[in-house]
Amino acid sequence: MKRILLIVLSVMAPVLIAAAQAPVAPNGIAYIPGYMTWKVIAPSYREDKGQIRIITGNEIAVAALHAGTKPLPDGSMLAKVAWKAEKHPVFPDATVPGAFMQVEFMVKDAKKYKDTGGWGFARFVGDELKPYGKDAGFVSECFQCHLPVATNDYLFTKIVRTP
Amino acid sequence: MKRILLIVLSVMAPVLIAAAQAPVAPNGIAYIPGYMTWKVIAPSYREDKGQIRIITGNEIAVAALHAGTKPLPDGSMLAKVAWKAEKHPVFPDATVPGAFMQVEFMVKDAKKYKDTGGWGFARFVGDELKPYGKDAGFVSECFQCHLPVATNDYLFTKIVRTP
Repeated sequence: MKRILLIVLSVMAPVLIAAAQAPVAPNGIAYIPGYMTWKVIAPSYREDKGQIRIITGNEIAVAALHAGTKPLPDGSMLAKVAWKAEKHPVFPDATVPGAFMQVEFMVKDAKKYKDTGGWGFARFVGDELKPYGKDAGFVSECFQCHLPVATNDYLFTKIVRTP
Repeated sequence: MKRILLIVLSVMAPVLIAAAQAPVAPNGIAYIPGYMTWKVIAPSYREDKGQIRIITGNEIAVAALHAGTKPLPDGSMLAKVAWKAEKHPVFPDATVPGAFMQVEFMVKDAKKYKDTGGWGFARFVGDELKPYGKDAGFVSECFQCHLPVATNDYLFTKIVRTP
């Protein structure tokens, strides 16, 4: 019995440690590891912010976007990952990613987040993944910015097409 | 026996059709479907060409890039996918992908492609995926461009980092 408990604990330990260490946004959304293993929805470039980005989505989100399903179903998750935009040192015509700047998540739960289009928002900044926002009210800032794309289920990004 | 043959044919048919339809570059490298299911290596933006891109890699390539293994091992495959760069219609500060423009592949086989740094190059242009190059000599153009990054195994792109 003791042996089984030890095995269980040794298997669970990394999970428990990871969960304990994951930063949490003021609205309760925890940092979601693994967003770099999700499929690409699109790249984007923000000259005004000096950032180059990719938007990734989990299987539920990507399947819905490919099918044109709107609104996206509960369980959809998107990540917008931003790096400092830099000129390539050898090939300056190319703007490429430098240091990591932030990652933003949108998590769909139509009931839980009904006041913000069914989307829960979170942002984690810098290498320390500092949660953005003083309190849960920070989401109004996110939502206000996304309002102009309400007809696209509050998403700016359209999924890229390839032949 | 007939039944088994029918089953084998019905299973193989989509593969055979896909293989028959895949465009082939003048150096014999066939279009590689599935590159959008590979992991992201980085986004990039080419203002001079009006293109926004992502570079993806298969498991072998991505594992080697994360580990810092150079040169990359045989079997590594990278895709550079380019879309027309456009201002977002609602949020013009963001440059986003429009129409698909081209996809370029680099395929590692140190012996087969020893004259070009161990890399086989191919480019497929537009929605018709037209193979680039009049003859197999087109690769000298690719290789010349990649020569300045010879010390990085002829790769311009560094894999993005996240915390």
